[in-house]
Amino acid sequence: MRRLAALALIPLIAAAQAPTPAKPKTPGEIAAAAPKADWREVPAEDLLVFELQGGKKVVMQLAPEFAPVHVANIRALAKGGWWNSSAIYRVQDNYVAQWGNNESEKPFPAGVTAKPPAEYARPLAGLNVTDLGSPDAYASRAGFVNGWPVAIHDSEGLANLTHCYAMVGVGRGLSPDTGTGGELYTVIGNAPRHLDRNIAVVGRIVQGIEHMSSLPRGTEALGFYKERTSDVPIVGAKLASDIPAAERPRFEYLTGASFAAYLNARKNRQDDFFIRPAGGAEVCNINVPVRPVPAG
Amino acid sequence: MRRLAALALIPLIAAAQAPTPAKPKTPGEIAAAAPKADWREVPAEDLLVFELQGGKKVVMQLAPEFAPVHVANIRALAKGGWWNSSAIYRVQDNYVAQWGNNESEKPFPAGVTAKPPAEYARPLAGLNVTDLGSPDAYASRAGFVNGWPVAIHDSEGLANLTHCYAMVGVGRGLSPDTGTGGELYTVIGNAPRHLDRNIAVVGRIVQGIEHMSSLPRGTEALGFYKERTSDVPIVGAKLASDIPAAERPRFEYLTGASFAAYLNARKNRQDDFFIRPAGGAEVCNINVPVRPVPAG
Repeated sequence: MRRLAALALIPLIAAAQAPTPAKPKTPGEIAAAAPKADWREVPAEDLLVFELQGGKKVVMQLAPEFAPVHVANIRALAKGGWWNSSAIYRVQDNYVAQWGNNESEKPFPAGVTAKPPAEYARPLAGLNVTDLGSPDAYASRAGFVNGWPVAIHDSEGLANLTHCYAMVGVGRGLSPDTGTGGELYTVIGNAPRHLDRNIAVVGRIVQGIEHMSSLPRGTEALGFYKERTSDVPIVGAKLASDIPAAERPRFEYLTGASFAAYLNARKNRQDDFFIRPAGGAEVCNINVPVRPVPAG
Repeated sequence: MRRLAALALIPLIAAAQAPTPAKPKTPGEIAAAAPKADWREVPAEDLLVFELQGGKKVVMQLAPEFAPVHVANIRALAKGGWWNSSAIYRVQDNYVAQWGNNESEKPFPAGVTAKPPAEYARPLAGLNVTDLGSPDAYASRAGFVNGWPVAIHDSEGLANLTHCYAMVGVGRGLSPDTGTGGELYTVIGNAPRHLDRNIAVVGRIVQGIEHMSSLPRGTEALGFYKERTSDVPIVGAKLASDIPAAERPRFEYLTGASFAAYLNARKNRQDDFFIRPAGGAEVCNINVPVRPVPAG
């Protein structure tokens, strides 16, 4: 039973019902059927590949249009070997996993800005926003820009990346410190949107988030591991643009009319399982489709 | 550095700054200082204690005021030994962990209603709601009832428990099946609110969620484990009311003026770390305080 029931999201019994002929497409079906023109490739310099002990890979997409100085730092840190022999040292349930090096123990490589500006929001002007079309508790509205979830503050003319699952932010000390990028965290629980505009969000994990989200939780305050021997070793990190073209990972995200249809379907699930469409959605419950570029 | 920085939620450097004398209390400080009268104990018959292999405990609070027939089923299943030698067999990243028995392989014990009503929402009448006070994307408003997060549909006069992190729902087949309670799931990622009103929510995990959320993700479709040998064994489950009083776990949740102050502080974080209060919150980002009843 349970091994066969792949139709429903919370499957219990593989039903004998025939599918309704004219049923609307599911979000997954819409993404799978999207034409190539609606998928946009992530530039290789915006992909950072972390290698964990044991060969596990975690791929992060950078967001230079939202935090250019922090992203430039992260690229410089990668090129300068900062992540070699670093570690995941904090895993707090329903919150974040955090990794990096102790900045007081390891000098920054060349090209790192020690005190970046507070890139917690950016001007709305110049952004092409696909509106979410549902109310947002943290901003005047929410939506999507180039595949990124954003909150928009119309009266201030500002937009910020939202703290959705798998988004990556920059650890920092108390204000006015803004962090360098030498310590990063990713969301592994419900979206902690109260962090929005309080910290620089610099990207998201597009592959391998499960290697962080399924780690043992730290038992110290805030989920820090008690002993350094519990830390999860990171072998190193490379920008995809520094990996030979034949070996580098490639990712693409959904845009255009296909994304609009996907968004509408996510807000109005109705199929053999969903009996009542929600008629709306929170921005972090949309999960913009991102996938490896298919071969061929 | 990182081992000392307990002040900030995303700490990087233990700051040398002295704390501001008149700073507002954090949500955690408000809960810790709440008078005993603002904590309400969960009845023993509403606590179900799962024991996993290796002695790990997962404690679930039942919500009889929202899904009485399903909750009665779960109590009957526990009393009838249903959970003995059951298993966690599905863990899907950023979604759910699911456990139980194959209902086609094990007969129900006495007292189980095979086809419960669709307890996906209940009348709003009779509920004492503390309003969230922020817009909700899935309902006309959201709030809290006896420590539970709820969505409210005013024009329909209905309320439902929301699919927040650690909430527990009943696996079911395709409609009109409503599930019995013999297979349960809990949310281990961003709140899948699109499931609201499509499935019976029957409670939440109040202790030990990390024993489910940190499990290896299943590699089959929907996060099912490929082989039954990967299943995580459950030894059994007992209602706290069936455990000798001296040994039974006891939990309490925050109510009253202290909960109102906590809610306000969660919506308006401002302290040594938070430089910009959000001014609002999504209902699933509130995390109602629930704790073991302190000794004495």
